[in-house]
Amino acid sequence: MADSTIYRASTTAPVNIAVVKYWGKRDPKLNLPTNSSLSVTLSQADLRTLTTASCSASYLASEGDSLLLNGEPSDVSGARTQACFRELRTRRAALEAADPSLPKLSTMPLRLVSENNFPTAAGLASSAAGFAAFVRAIANLYELPASPSELSLIARQGSGSACRSLFGGYVAWRMGSAADGSDSMADQVAEAAHWPEMRALILVVSAAKKGVSSTSGMQQTVATSGLFQERIARVVPQNMDAMEKAIKERDFAAFAEVTMRDSNSFHATCADTYPPIFYMNDVSRAAIRAVEAINAAAGRTVAAYTFDAGPNAVIYYLEQDTEAVVGTFYHVLGDMDGWKREVLSGLKPTLSLDESVAGLLKAGVSRIIMTGVGEGPLKTEEYLVAEDGSPAKR
Amino acid sequence: MADSTIYRASTTAPVNIAVVKYWGKRDPKLNLPTNSSLSVTLSQADLRTLTTASCSASYLASEGDSLLLNGEPSDVSGARTQACFRELRTRRAALEAADPSLPKLSTMPLRLVSENNFPTAAGLASSAAGFAAFVRAIANLYELPASPSELSLIARQGSGSACRSLFGGYVAWRMGSAADGSDSMADQVAEAAHWPEMRALILVVSAAKKGVSSTSGMQQTVATSGLFQERIARVVPQNMDAMEKAIKERDFAAFAEVTMRDSNSFHATCADTYPPIFYMNDVSRAAIRAVEAINAAAGRTVAAYTFDAGPNAVIYYLEQDTEAVVGTFYHVLGDMDGWKREVLSGLKPTLSLDESVAGLLKAGVSRIIMTGVGEGPLKTEEYLVAEDGSPAKR
Repeated sequence: MADSTIYRASTTAPVNIAVVKYWGKRDPKLNLPTNSSLSVTLSQADLRTLTTASCSASYLASEGDSLLLNGEPSDVSGARTQACFRELRTRRAALEAADPSLPKLSTMPLRLVSENNFPTAAGLASSAAGFAAFVRAIANLYELPASPSELSLIARQGSGSACRSLFGGYVAWRMGSAADGSDSMADQVAEAAHWPEMRALILVVSAAKKGVSSTSGMQQTVATSGLFQERIARVVPQNMDAMEKAIKERDFAAFAEVTMRDSNSFHATCADTYPPIFYMNDVSRAAIRAVEAINAAAGRTVAAYTFDAGPNAVIYYLEQDTEAVVGTFYHVLGDMDGWKREVLSGLKPTLSLDESVAGLLKAGVSRIIMTGVGEGPLKTEEYLVAEDGSPAKR
Repeated sequence: MADSTIYRASTTAPVNIAVVKYWGKRDPKLNLPTNSSLSVTLSQADLRTLTTASCSASYLASEGDSLLLNGEPSDVSGARTQACFRELRTRRAALEAADPSLPKLSTMPLRLVSENNFPTAAGLASSAAGFAAFVRAIANLYELPASPSELSLIARQGSGSACRSLFGGYVAWRMGSAADGSDSMADQVAEAAHWPEMRALILVVSAAKKGVSSTSGMQQTVATSGLFQERIARVVPQNMDAMEKAIKERDFAAFAEVTMRDSNSFHATCADTYPPIFYMNDVSRAAIRAVEAINAAAGRTVAAYTFDAGPNAVIYYLEQDTEAVVGTFYHVLGDMDGWKREVLSGLKPTLSLDESVAGLLKAGVSRIIMTGVGEGPLKTEEYLVAEDGSPAKR
């Protein structure tokens, strides 16, 4: 008689924004990076993926494994997704072999349902949160004793930066040296509680056109940039050391300088790629000028910009400097969606930006996201798969 | 009794646009560069400075040396201009010492009048042509036996890139190694007649705001870019070798690739400067995309972009590819001033550009300059100083 039990487990996972950037694979198949990287995990109250993993002997084997992402069936046949399924099943199968009393979940089709709480339009790299939630949810379902670092090895194979989303706070991805990637994993440099005042203001910039995907872009850089080797051999190792020190000492000025320099270095190697890759546009550059003006007006470093593979500006600042940083942008971009008005009530702009800078921001920024440093993946009793195994009605 | 003779000599000098860029001084006082560079001298029919140098015992010593530039008195007290005066007078004085029959021009005040035949608004680096004409005119006045390379040593002290404007055709500035700069001078890689089909289409882009001056910008890059050392130690030497070979072999595809890669590398080190320096804007980047589209449509490399310390795009191409290159831009920018309509009559656009690219170009390009490779400074009987020593009426 067939066991019709529906096994379910849910987790949320956060987005992370790197302050020392991952750009370049030394092994594209295993997703092994050319350099280590370091990121800040952002609060799931503002940006998170919720994923439910379920399996059952009653699921049709012919359907195989499936993923419903934001209500749309998503292809799981890709090599990276398959690698994650395989790694997780292998570990579950080992538990089942060691303890025959365990249900044979590793043999059952997996049904995953996943949703983001932020607009895909925001163009935020959601693959990090997505693969982190994917791996964490299945690990919960399989009751794997794996640590976050062990799971980061698996998530890394789905999406490199996903390995950093298995931790909260301040997270390093160590590039490692083993050919099989067994030492290329994430660890926590400091938990969110170590430096809880860290905030991030995200200016979502509407790109005229989607740029080169980061997966192909980074390999074009590795192959053609004459400056890239210097970045990975000398610049990034120095930035990693300086950034870990800045975080341990809660030294925002040092954190900010390394963050801005590393973003500049990363985009410089993109511009040095042949043909050149440009992720930032005139609006992004206006955000840089605004941050420079804010720091100059404050007489100290209160804000740091960083840009990923797109035009959005992520601006880190400390909670106590909200007025100097957020107040200035709010003065120019107050009409946009996404402001936490309650936080802003009574904020006075301490500075009015240069007209050309303000004009570019007004014309090019499409929405705001206000968030801050946050926790890692959280187990939840909220399920996106109903008890009968069907996608939960929302 | 005072000799009231007015001694006069006139020359024209060309603009040059580098295809391997000069960026960085190892000795700011002597204008010694961190790397060699290579440029194409542009035709003086389109872009030139005309300078008349004159001197006379009848000029008031109290007036000292003077320069009238485009009708405006220009300060000659700067260290660089003074260095040029000093170097030239020293050489004249040596001739006078060797031959007492020579008039003592080295003791007389110099009166220089200079005019450009192109709009200053074009934001083209006119200092190269200006200092080349300045040095060449005084050398003619003093009847110095100096070779163009010897004069390039002097012009270099006025403005680094000016040393390349003392030659026509394809010109290298060898960085040299001597501490006193005695071996940091220009030489001719090939004359214009070696590869006369080289053309340049300049898209003059209206910059919202003047960027950082190249003099201060390049020193900020030297001081702060983590990638700059790699450019000067490895990238530029390779580009110099490849570029000389491409020119000697008249290999446009190779010339174009090195030109584009070196421009990208230079602007990458600007973006890696802290704080970052951005000379290119979204219009400049649209010009790059247009050149890439033109080359893709042609199925071979027919156009090469390069950018100096500003947003203007200089696009090199060969005369036989005028239709593929100029035809495409004329289709989009036909309303602008500066087209040589006679060259264009009957040109069909072989390609219509992507709408976002065309839109950015239409909105951001303010005028066109069509020119090509040309000759070095030319002695002329056209004087900007009248026989009585006063500025000539124009």
